[in-house]
Amino acid sequence: MIPNVVSAGTSRRAPSRRGRSLWQERLLPAGRCAAVVISQTMTLQLGKRQWGRMERRTVKSLKRIAIDMDEVIADFSEKHLRLYNDQFGESLTAEDLRGHRLWTLRPQVADDILSMLDHPLFFRDLSVMPDSQEVIAELARDYEIFIATAAMERPTSFAAKYEWLKEHFPFLPDKNFVFCGDKSIIYADYLIDDSVRHFKRFVGQGILFTASHNIYEEGYVRVKDWQDVRRYFRETARGEEP
Amino acid sequence: MIPNVVSAGTSRRAPSRRGRSLWQERLLPAGRCAAVVISQTMTLQLGKRQWGRMERRTVKSLKRIAIDMDEVIADFSEKHLRLYNDQFGESLTAEDLRGHRLWTLRPQVADDILSMLDHPLFFRDLSVMPDSQEVIAELARDYEIFIATAAMERPTSFAAKYEWLKEHFPFLPDKNFVFCGDKSIIYADYLIDDSVRHFKRFVGQGILFTASHNIYEEGYVRVKDWQDVRRYFRETARGEEP
Repeated sequence: MIPNVVSAGTSRRAPSRRGRSLWQERLLPAGRCAAVVISQTMTLQLGKRQWGRMERRTVKSLKRIAIDMDEVIADFSEKHLRLYNDQFGESLTAEDLRGHRLWTLRPQVADDILSMLDHPLFFRDLSVMPDSQEVIAELARDYEIFIATAAMERPTSFAAKYEWLKEHFPFLPDKNFVFCGDKSIIYADYLIDDSVRHFKRFVGQGILFTASHNIYEEGYVRVKDWQDVRRYFRETARGEEP
Repeated sequence: MIPNVVSAGTSRRAPSRRGRSLWQERLLPAGRCAAVVISQTMTLQLGKRQWGRMERRTVKSLKRIAIDMDEVIADFSEKHLRLYNDQFGESLTAEDLRGHRLWTLRPQVADDILSMLDHPLFFRDLSVMPDSQEVIAELARDYEIFIATAAMERPTSFAAKYEWLKEHFPFLPDKNFVFCGDKSIIYADYLIDDSVRHFKRFVGQGILFTASHNIYEEGYVRVKDWQDVRRYFRETARGEEP
């Protein structure tokens, strides 16, 4: 285990490699020479404009954004709350979940609440978070997009999560889906997630997506919705222009 | 897409950060200060020996090995070959697959061959590769072990692969299982894999696990079996001692 002291700082500050992806930072010293050789060879055959386009798309590698599913692109808690209210005759709302998970708010029935998630179809019909499709499609032009979900916590959810992604994000290649547990295994420049625990050992910039349960978390880069994600990356891009 | 020119070099040479994990390389400048503060506080309360043990296990973070499943810990091609021979009345052996995949050796029935893999139970009863359990259990004492499989290529395989891992590698936590597609998303110091394509953009040291199909690949660090993996990491550890 990596102690928090070693990594806690990274998710809380802006990355220092402005304008360079993790790839470029780690791999470029060798790559740069190769790129120069290729550049000199290829410009003999390509017009200036054509080469400019190729250079942008290949030699200047894309930065990578990893995106969580539940409570970030899939409205997990709306369905969970609805099922809970139906089963237990309550009328809890998102307001009641401020600073809580449903199972910490009602610990006496935590097992029942969590077992709802084991149903193989629980994750199949979650609503898509507003604007997430549009903004992710937009980001996919300038970034490599990966979906990274802690599906190992609910192995019964694999098929439903996969089918949900294929239905609602058909423009993302499934080779870019990652079902994992410990997200410190993710090699990306950014991770958009609603759980701060995933930022502890994450190598890039953590971006906390606001959800009722994380409303009191402080000290993280925070976005409140997908329009806010769009704004964040527009500003980041402006800050990175030479 | 990242061009091969940028990354091709990395999987072919030993990592330059001898003795330091990727964590330490990326995160330590800040972490080192925190560790020193903690060190000074904690040695007041801990005996020298106790502190030494803590320091080794936490402040000196473990390096991480990611391990592929098929043809590395699970004997994929033995079963595939057997099913093929049964269905097509042939008697092909591993020898016939030197430099080939079954579907490239018999391209006229490639669709039939590949569709065998879509059966939800195909991956459930593969044999465990000799010595893999023992050597991985041994490595798990000094490294963080992750299992990284390109399961997104066969979404019907999720449940079978998960259950197979829980049965045969019960000592590995399932939060360390990664079902992905493009393995460049894996953040680890080493990747043991039988497919060289996964090394192209991998950030750490690729280690090619010998299989019939990759027998003619050259220029990679190669291990021929799990005893060879054990030897590789023993030598690596010796080389890293101060």
